[in-house]
Amino acid sequence: MKHLTAMNELSIEDIFGLIKEAEDLKKGKAHHTLSGRFAANLFFEPSTRTRFSFEVAEKKLGMNVLNLDGVSTSVQKGESLYDTVRTLESIGADVCVIRHSEDHYYKDLVGRVGIPVVNAGDGCGQHPTQSLLDLMTIYEEFSSFNGLTISIHGDIKHSRVARSNAEVLTRLGATVLFSGPDEWKDKDNPYGTYVPADEAVANSDVVMLLRIQHERHQTKADDRDYLQTFGLSTERVKRMKKDAIIMHPAPVNRGVEIDSTLVESAQSRIFKQMENGVYIRMAVLKRALEQGENEKRGDQAYVLFN
Amino acid sequence: MKHLTAMNELSIEDIFGLIKEAEDLKKGKAHHTLSGRFAANLFFEPSTRTRFSFEVAEKKLGMNVLNLDGVSTSVQKGESLYDTVRTLESIGADVCVIRHSEDHYYKDLVGRVGIPVVNAGDGCGQHPTQSLLDLMTIYEEFSSFNGLTISIHGDIKHSRVARSNAEVLTRLGATVLFSGPDEWKDKDNPYGTYVPADEAVANSDVVMLLRIQHERHQTKADDRDYLQTFGLSTERVKRMKKDAIIMHPAPVNRGVEIDSTLVESAQSRIFKQMENGVYIRMAVLKRALEQGENEKRGDQAYVLFN
Amino acid sequence: MKHLTAMNELSIEDIFGLIKEAEDLKKGKAHHTLSGRFAANLFFEPSTRTRFSFEVAEKKLGMNVLNLDGVSTSVQKGESLYDTVRTLESIGADVCVIRHSEDHYYKDLVGRVGIPVVNAGDGCGQHPTQSLLDLMTIYEEFSSFNGLTISIHGDIKHSRVARSNAEVLTRLGATVLFSGPDEWKDKDNPYGTYVPADEAVANSDVVMLLRIQHERHQTKADDRDYLQTFGLSTERVKRMKKDAIIMHPAPVNRGVEIDSTLVESAQSRIFKQMENGVYIRMAVLKRALEQGENEKRGDQAYVLFN
Repeated sequence: MKHLTAMNELSIEDIFGLIKEAEDLKKGKAHHTLSGRFAANLFFEPSTRTRFSFEVAEKKLGMNVLNLDGVSTSVQKGESLYDTVRTLESIGADVCVIRHSEDHYYKDLVGRVGIPVVNAGDGCGQHPTQSLLDLMTIYEEFSSFNGLTISIHGDIKHSRVARSNAEVLTRLGATVLFSGPDEWKDKDNPYGTYVPADEAVANSDVVMLLRIQHERHQTKADDRDYLQTFGLSTERVKRMKKDAIIMHPAPVNRGVEIDSTLVESAQSRIFKQMENGVYIRMAVLKRALEQGENEKRGDQAYVLFN
Repeated sequence: MKHLTAMNELSIEDIFGLIKEAEDLKKGKAHHTLSGRFAANLFFEPSTRTRFSFEVAEKKLGMNVLNLDGVSTSVQKGESLYDTVRTLESIGADVCVIRHSEDHYYKDLVGRVGIPVVNAGDGCGQHPTQSLLDLMTIYEEFSSFNGLTISIHGDIKHSRVARSNAEVLTRLGATVLFSGPDEWKDKDNPYGTYVPADEAVANSDVVMLLRIQHERHQTKADDRDYLQTFGLSTERVKRMKKDAIIMHPAPVNRGVEIDSTLVESAQSRIFKQMENGVYIRMAVLKRALEQGENEKRGDQAYVLFN
Repeated sequence: MKHLTAMNELSIEDIFGLIKEAEDLKKGKAHHTLSGRFAANLFFEPSTRTRFSFEVAEKKLGMNVLNLDGVSTSVQKGESLYDTVRTLESIGADVCVIRHSEDHYYKDLVGRVGIPVVNAGDGCGQHPTQSLLDLMTIYEEFSSFNGLTISIHGDIKHSRVARSNAEVLTRLGATVLFSGPDEWKDKDNPYGTYVPADEAVANSDVVMLLRIQHERHQTKADDRDYLQTFGLSTERVKRMKKDAIIMHPAPVNRGVEIDSTLVESAQSRIFKQMENGVYIRMAVLKRALEQGENEKRGDQAYVLFN
């Protein structure tokens, strides 16, 4: 049994192991290996995209799926997250996938519940499977992280993606650039250097745009203005290196973070990221469950292939 | 891959092909032919009945089902329908079944997305699988459409059923009568003749009642009054021909469109329609997906058996 | 086909038959015996816990599951429960599991619909599968009901659990004690004797706590006060007999009905109850459906093993 709550609990070997497993699954490696097991998806914050991605991953593995969305009974009735997860464990859930608005909600669970927890996003904290699918997409493109430059654009401060990715990309040997409005700089994230948008785009192998989270901010920025100053406009995209790629965690605000015409351009990997997300989540679910049944197989059993 | 968005895109051969396939499936023809495929049901307007009918159809075909109801995240987040469908395509959906309050919502999708769209109702537009299940129910009864008289009663103007059915029934050789309040006449629907309720009922082989859509109108009609003047009352039913049948797309407002005692009478096919709906939807889903894999098999391969 | 709406329709032989079947299923008896059948879960009152328990039971039996939660369309559209169930029957549901806020809602269904109804809670009425899982948990512990003393603590008047359990436990040879605030005494439930909390706890083999249903009452009791006067506090638990057990239908209000530290104590069977709930519901679903296919096998075929 292995929880996955934050990227810093994965070693470099773990990460390459998960990417390799996801690539094998994408190539058609046998799927129904968790047939008859139960996955419970607890999404206390709505996120259709992530929830569906996990649901497809679970069903491709042959699992039964229990979906608990938003404002549910027991939660209305004031039950703690711990009691909810223990209940699901009692009725037969083998793994819980959880999104919650509270940072580090999982600290109340790890070490206390008997089934693995997979973090599908905690508050302004982490979103490790999003990070892993980003890594897989980059690795598919460049076959390495060493020496790459990745620029992350937008609201660095409130982004789970910026938080998860900057640390792990640095650890994997990449250089991280940050770019965006001053008020969204994050003093607590030391893994990137702030540069203007034009410079970031011109120097990057990967231009990674963050979503403007209108729902997390009080005022709505002037969209057109944002695009020209901080986003990937049709002007700015011309500065990109020839083989560089565009990424975005989606859903995209077309015309805000990125000009609408670039979303499905030849350099964009945005829909590829979504596709890879399913296979990464399959790999994470297999890791969560299969290791639990075979305690002899440690992390070192992963083939290191970088 | 074949979208199904409106009845007028189906040839007469297509229609008989779908009815024949549905009848075979109803008789027990092997079901699990789409095992492992994913269907996404996107219901932006609530419709438990239609959604469940599709869900049963999909599961009988062995498909995995993703349900997106009502007010979902990404939609709250302002994502376009096109991006939602492209996302579902990216994460592995093989077909999208969509109900949406906007007329012709599918025009933004057809030709742009890589998976088939099955229209489960658009605004005041079409509802082709409802139309097909009506046709199947009529065909089961009379083994032909030629020479039949079908009267459609109620809010002709706002009804997806009236719109879809009148055109296709005329095309299939039937005569369509319309009946209902003056304010609900539809100048844009040329496929029927307006007659008083008594005359319509007396001359029809099929008395097809429409639901009073309280939720689409400002004022609530006097129910009892409506039944006597425009609905199928216990008095009016006596005028029906001996072998004529009663149909209604459901849910029924008992005591408004039809007297409650007639809903499950010997002449009623209302619950039979619901049963047939599952098999028609199975046929439509098979058409949407199987033809996509076998481009050689054209429409002309359907056996014409009328 | 067998409905299950209230405990008093089950004979003692039926009850032991269901417990035995549930125990066999828990030990690993072949599960997928209802493969391809459809269960519809209609929860008009929210209850994640019970709904998930049924959903797991259904999926372990290989069934397809249709979930209708809360405020659904057709219900918004004013459709009666009878018409909803008849619709589900028409589209292929083999059994309906229903929770509804109205007492005896099922009286409108039994004898009129063609599929079995399993009551998952009606108003302040019954909750027979909760009762059966309680019986299974007690039977697992003591291998008999004869001569046991069971005390039920809390809101006797509004509790489905108190109503279902007191009658059947008495019938099975146990002695039932009631304990709780005066205003929650139930004049219509003759199957227990009211005693003070200390006396009830000291004399019981099973201390069964009821949930304080804040949502059913106008005023919120002073929680700490309730625990000390009527609940299972750390002081009061010391009076329990050595082999006595603690039960609670959950979700628990920690610190109200029971001190938080006792919820997972050695004497508690609270999470065991949840686990047993899945197997009891599997047995109930098998009874509902399998007997329908084999009318020759009567109730007397159950092995009486008490």
